[in-house]
Amino acid sequence: MKTLSINELNNKATAPVRTKIIVKLRYFTIFPNIFETYFKLYILDYLIKFCAENEMKTILRSNFLNPVNHDKCDFLCDYCLTIDEQGKIASLEPYSEKLTGNNDRIVDLSNSVITPGFIDLHSHLPQYSAIGIGKGALLPWLSNYIIPLESKFSNEQFAHEQSVAFFNEALSFGTTTIVTYCSIHRHATSIAFETASDIGIRAFIGNSLIDLPNEAGYFSSLETIKSDIDFLVNKHHLTNSEKLQYIVTPRYAGSCTKELMSYSANFAKSNDLFIQTHLAENKSELELMKKLHPEFDNYTGIYDKTGLLTDKTLLAHCIYLDQTELAMIQNARSIVCHCPTSNRYLSSGIMPLVDYQKMGLRIGLGTDVAAGYSLSMLNEAKEAIETSKSYDISKDENGNDISAANAFYLSTKGAAENLNIADKVGTIHIGLDADLAIFDLDIKQLSANSEDILRSLIYKKFNQSAKAVLIAGKRVYGSL
Amino acid sequence: MKTLSINELNNKATAPVRTKIIVKLRYFTIFPNIFETYFKLYILDYLIKFCAENEMKTILRSNFLNPVNHDKCDFLCDYCLTIDEQGKIASLEPYSEKLTGNNDRIVDLSNSVITPGFIDLHSHLPQYSAIGIGKGALLPWLSNYIIPLESKFSNEQFAHEQSVAFFNEALSFGTTTIVTYCSIHRHATSIAFETASDIGIRAFIGNSLIDLPNEAGYFSSLETIKSDIDFLVNKHHLTNSEKLQYIVTPRYAGSCTKELMSYSANFAKSNDLFIQTHLAENKSELELMKKLHPEFDNYTGIYDKTGLLTDKTLLAHCIYLDQTELAMIQNARSIVCHCPTSNRYLSSGIMPLVDYQKMGLRIGLGTDVAAGYSLSMLNEAKEAIETSKSYDISKDENGNDISAANAFYLSTKGAAENLNIADKVGTIHIGLDADLAIFDLDIKQLSANSEDILRSLIYKKFNQSAKAVLIAGKRVYGSL
Repeated sequence: MKTLSINELNNKATAPVRTKIIVKLRYFTIFPNIFETYFKLYILDYLIKFCAENEMKTILRSNFLNPVNHDKCDFLCDYCLTIDEQGKIASLEPYSEKLTGNNDRIVDLSNSVITPGFIDLHSHLPQYSAIGIGKGALLPWLSNYIIPLESKFSNEQFAHEQSVAFFNEALSFGTTTIVTYCSIHRHATSIAFETASDIGIRAFIGNSLIDLPNEAGYFSSLETIKSDIDFLVNKHHLTNSEKLQYIVTPRYAGSCTKELMSYSANFAKSNDLFIQTHLAENKSELELMKKLHPEFDNYTGIYDKTGLLTDKTLLAHCIYLDQTELAMIQNARSIVCHCPTSNRYLSSGIMPLVDYQKMGLRIGLGTDVAAGYSLSMLNEAKEAIETSKSYDISKDENGNDISAANAFYLSTKGAAENLNIADKVGTIHIGLDADLAIFDLDIKQLSANSEDILRSLIYKKFNQSAKAVLIAGKRVYGSL
Repeated sequence: MKTLSINELNNKATAPVRTKIIVKLRYFTIFPNIFETYFKLYILDYLIKFCAENEMKTILRSNFLNPVNHDKCDFLCDYCLTIDEQGKIASLEPYSEKLTGNNDRIVDLSNSVITPGFIDLHSHLPQYSAIGIGKGALLPWLSNYIIPLESKFSNEQFAHEQSVAFFNEALSFGTTTIVTYCSIHRHATSIAFETASDIGIRAFIGNSLIDLPNEAGYFSSLETIKSDIDFLVNKHHLTNSEKLQYIVTPRYAGSCTKELMSYSANFAKSNDLFIQTHLAENKSELELMKKLHPEFDNYTGIYDKTGLLTDKTLLAHCIYLDQTELAMIQNARSIVCHCPTSNRYLSSGIMPLVDYQKMGLRIGLGTDVAAGYSLSMLNEAKEAIETSKSYDISKDENGNDISAANAFYLSTKGAAENLNIADKVGTIHIGLDADLAIFDLDIKQLSANSEDILRSLIYKKFNQSAKAVLIAGKRVYGSL
């Protein structure tokens, strides 16, 4: 395969770029091994810049895994993907000599596999630094470790440092869209929006809404909350909706009054916003609901009656639900966020994923950091598969484990559909934004069977950084 | 902190080394960012060489996690460890200005945590390339995916490539001692010994002993097996016993005649060798044993009666054992290899770790690649903790999960005691070999509590490469 000739680069490049190229090349010849990675990285940046300046396109030659549905994933071996000047996918076709005949602009990624950027439906930015710290079940774990940590987000410098660490770590694992809770603080949440914008990641971000008084003093009045929501929607949602959205975030019925939940539901409806909350994660939590909200028949009913159960509502965990509650969720077309890593970490239980899928519930995956201990969606996909086996083991059954295609779909296209952004991201198709995660994986040692290659990716790379990540065609992490 | 002065280096260094240093320094001043890692790496190598030539010692300034027992791990914050010219630990003491007063030879690893190199008690070298591939329960998984793969080890080039990949991957995760099965082939096993020797890893290596005919033709005659064992013991065990040992490896009672098991037991006893086999992993396997070996009362009894149950025998899995069988194992002082990742992957079941520990059984951890899908012992330690929670979930109990100190002990000191090498490796103590795994971990953000730091290491780094790994003081992986 031909590469872009240096003369051609130099003739057309701008002066500062040309200077850099010449310096690198001079030393490259002296220390080829040292410079190789750096040089390739530089060349990619150069190509993107060069192509943009000349209204040309960047082409990635590689292997692609593309989700189709719960049962199917396409594998495209040795294809070329073109990114246009707007960062959209302009073409995707099998590699051929003919293609390169007129083109010197190809980046060779033959030893990689490229997937759509991953979509994490449930995470907690302020909990990032508590990964692995603390043990016990949900409610004491929250009181002993998490609330004291989240309270520290009143400090804006701390909030900034943690936001940078959180979004960068998610990006490094190939996550290009993330839905996250923040602390209760207006300014910490605003900082999270600004950081996400700077880093270039797509995000749904909401301040945790808590108005039930607690010993830690970690709550706000309903009036303050209303003002916080207005501030954040005006400052961020309405100004950067291309990549960032405000999500209404009543923490869970254990920390909200009925008034706050109703207000949240009305506000979300009036402004066409997504909502996120927690549901039926832990048995002690179920008892708490009976005590706090005795007027409702069941936990899901609290959300249903206050208007929070909509087709734009993300419900995290959903482990302990009876048939009545499942029917409410199905009727409302709310979205279940399955968080298998977290559910084991807090010994919460096992969500019956396969049963829910058979019912036709809308489902996606969430890392739920810090009860989940990794921001890697490949890890979460692996855990979704492995937890379906744990469910088998606990029932003394066998063979009901979900396929890799299913776990992959839940982490990409399925999640995009749930967030109403499947016309923009979640798959690799012409016209969609080039949100791509690139992983080193030597496919020559594997069969050309999509399930095998997907399984190999999921099990070999589950907590390892991507080689590079692009969002809307722009490299936001790694090197090529 | 002072570093070794360049003049001092140049004045004392040998000519080729001096030349290299000068070249590096020249470019280092031009591109500090690019060269920093490479330069540090080079300096460490230089220091080790320089210190050896001048009968001086290398000092690592860092933070150390040192296993004590099932309940306790010491955390040494800001200590200095000295390695002598034989690669042994010469001193371990708190950092002080005084220490550096007479010393310019310190490598600064303040942002790292150093542990003893990990010890993996159960793995299968020939299965490495099948990670994540294939599904189903143990017996069909073996027939459909594993035996065809292991058969390919008759090809020596393939055997070499796979051995290199396997040992290097284990090293990259901080494993410095590994116990592994090979295929049935004499030459492939010999290649594994040679590769381990070249790479510098410590290993217990055995060819799988299989003499029960099977459809795949993957077996040998007892006479061939006897000759293979003699060849391998003479060629490798007796010549390189400092780091490499031959381990007698009757695959499992499902693939061995009584004659082979008795021969293996006698040979191991006469030559004072370790033995490894599999026990009670899967329910269908238990049925197979009744069919193949009806003259024995139970599965463990097969090994007991043929002489395989010794205090140098490693028994992988041990999920389904009754009280009689557990008593046999306890009396023989055989070692249980707990492989939690693998046990879930094949939906085999959950080994009752806490119950076994209460009984006082000798236990260690094994990755069991490729049914286990990672060679990282930090991942296995995490899975040991998390699987103890799965056991709770399946019994509807709570709070019986094992501590991080326990999982860490099983991966280091405990495993060394089980292999009778605790006088050489497994902990960080004066006089022991400097087998060390170094991980980037910013401890400034954590409390100085050993359990928290250990948990943070286990949950943040579980499938990520170490920064560097030393065996007997020699850098075998990464950079510093």
